[in-house]
Amino acid sequence: EALKQRRMQAVSIRRRTVSVRVEGGINLEIRKAEEKVVDSVVVAEISKPVTAYCRCWRSGTFPLCDGSHVKHNKATGDNVGPLLLKK
Amino acid sequence: EALKQRRMQAVSIRRRTVSVRVEGGINLEIRKAEEKVVDSVVVAEISKPVTAYCRCWRSGTFPLCDGSHVKHNKATGDNVGPLLLKK
Ligand code: FES
Ligand code: FES
Repeated sequence: EALKQRRMQAVSIRRRTVSVRVEGGINLEIRKAEEKVVDSVVVAEISKPVTAYCRCWRSGTFPLCDGSHVKHNKATGDNVGPLLLKK
Repeated sequence: EALKQRRMQAVSIRRRTVSVRVEGGINLEIRKAEEKVVDSVVVAEISKPVTAYCRCWRSGTFPLCDGSHVKHNKATGDNVGPLLLKK
């Protein structure tokens, strides 16, 4: 009887659903004190022929892209990349 | 003795760690057939005073922002927002 009870308990444990909150969502570290991270670019002030802006939130030079999306994509199977501003 | 054993079992269950892989990383749905999603904007062709570009990968009008970052931030506690291009 004790064994049967243990087995039933094990079954109920296996069927239990586990709720998981993805901590911090997409942005894990950048300017977390700000309620919403919005950046502005005055396009008339752009000097280089091409400037890459980060959309993966992993760049060490955010809001600019530093290529960190490559590591993120490799680690997770994701396919994110930057927005290129062209003069 | 049976009760004590059940209690110990419950403790070990509580202490179990659950590994979770976040499927697809940051971008869940947008152009997943592309190895890396990169977009280009020729700034000379911008017509509106302000254009918002999505960095949350939840927009229905990607690469433009449609305000979907608000729902994402509310649901996850995140703080992502768009890149604004200003003329
Ligand atoms: S580092 Fe984030 S898109 Fe390149
Ligand atoms: S909808 Fe993605 S940043 Fe606004």
